[in-house]
Amino acid sequence: MLKIVLLGTGNLATHLFKAFSETKTVNVVQVFGRNSAGLTFFEEKVDTTDDPGKLQKADIYVCAVSDDAIELVAQYPPQEDSIVVHCSGAVGLSALPKEIKRGVFYPLQSFTKGSQVDFSQVPVCVEAEKQEVLDILLALGNSISETCIPIDSDQRKALHLAAVFANNFTNHLLHRASVICEEYNLPFSLLKPLIGETINKLDSLSPLEAQTGPARRGDKDTQQEHMKLISDMQGREIYRILSQAIGDTYGN
Amino acid sequence: MLKIVLLGTGNLATHLFKAFSETKTVNVVQVFGRNSAGLTFFEEKVDTTDDPGKLQKADIYVCAVSDDAIELVAQYPPQEDSIVVHCSGAVGLSALPKEIKRGVFYPLQSFTKGSQVDFSQVPVCVEAEKQEVLDILLALGNSISETCIPIDSDQRKALHLAAVFANNFTNHLLHRASVICEEYNLPFSLLKPLIGETINKLDSLSPLEAQTGPARRGDKDTQQEHMKLISDMQGREIYRILSQAIGDTYGN
Repeated sequence: MLKIVLLGTGNLATHLFKAFSETKTVNVVQVFGRNSAGLTFFEEKVDTTDDPGKLQKADIYVCAVSDDAIELVAQYPPQEDSIVVHCSGAVGLSALPKEIKRGVFYPLQSFTKGSQVDFSQVPVCVEAEKQEVLDILLALGNSISETCIPIDSDQRKALHLAAVFANNFTNHLLHRASVICEEYNLPFSLLKPLIGETINKLDSLSPLEAQTGPARRGDKDTQQEHMKLISDMQGREIYRILSQAIGDTYGN
Repeated sequence: MLKIVLLGTGNLATHLFKAFSETKTVNVVQVFGRNSAGLTFFEEKVDTTDDPGKLQKADIYVCAVSDDAIELVAQYPPQEDSIVVHCSGAVGLSALPKEIKRGVFYPLQSFTKGSQVDFSQVPVCVEAEKQEVLDILLALGNSISETCIPIDSDQRKALHLAAVFANNFTNHLLHRASVICEEYNLPFSLLKPLIGETINKLDSLSPLEAQTGPARRGDKDTQQEHMKLISDMQGREIYRILSQAIGDTYGN
């Protein structure tokens, strides 16, 4: 049984707590939160503390906090034989104290309040300097996910960047689509099957193969009509550069 | 029973043919194709012709051809009491002859070879000048889809634009994510659960609420790190403008 202390009380910490609680190989013995309000959710389920001096002994301390809090929070665990990991895609191993067994436990998913996530389908990417630490992190990842792989820091940062394109940026484009629908009194739900199909296609086609639309066809007339319809300059700029990028990709 | 002649042999015509063939209220009596090679798929299933002079009599002629071929192909049906529709999101009613019963039958989906589509889930947007024509187009749409609604030309063009953001542009961003994965020897499949979650969230949250990531948080350090990782200027420009747009949306 791996004994875990979770440091953090946000979306990721909450999702990790639920996922670990359902395993038979991991025991979350304590949740630490810097402000006691965040601990409310956990109080009836596990030992909690907001005092860094009262952290329990554990095999792994999991810092599930925002990127800029990692360096601070990682100082709290007693510097003995334990492993300390952070969960960020963008932060280096060096944010953790050099003299400890340190590592990264990066679940590749976007965790939002109010949206349930099936952790078994969330890839977990792990990193460590020592093989013994890596083996334990792989076991930890495999306890909650069907996909747990070791990647190095450069790969992790690239994956985080790719995730920004695949999730954050696509979500913003969906927001812009919803604004256009609103402007013309159309229900955004009309677009949902199309959005679903954008994703379903990836089972049989690469995004390079799946591309359709006026920019792919080099249809300048439609692109000009669209530009006239877009009501804000930023929207037109986004339309222009993405159409250009698609055109360039296919040699139009 | 509505008698239909399909003009066109591409992805949309093929998907429409399959969908209409499964109904009990619509009978596709003929498929017309400008080049006979395109007709091969249909030959054993229905009467086909590549001669505009040999079009059968029908209630509705459905021009399922590329935008720039609509005006030409719409001249072919005998100008009697029949309805002639095109299927484009971007082309006006005026591309069809003025003196006929004309309309638009716009299925809001991206049809790609090699990807199956459940037509019952594809919203069909219809438009016509006369109520009697609109009623028939609504019946035609309802025969294959759970969602068939009348919209006007301005709404249709706006919906087409929104679809470009929601489908074409998001697909290109997925392509860029896949290229980053390739550069760092990472399987693109790692990102698929994250991409799926981007869509799943829309069941409970608006895209405005669902936004996450460094641009949403105003995390400039991570954005700078990402910019260094992007290997092409166009990629950096896309990253910059979309991050800026997200930041502006949330007042960062």
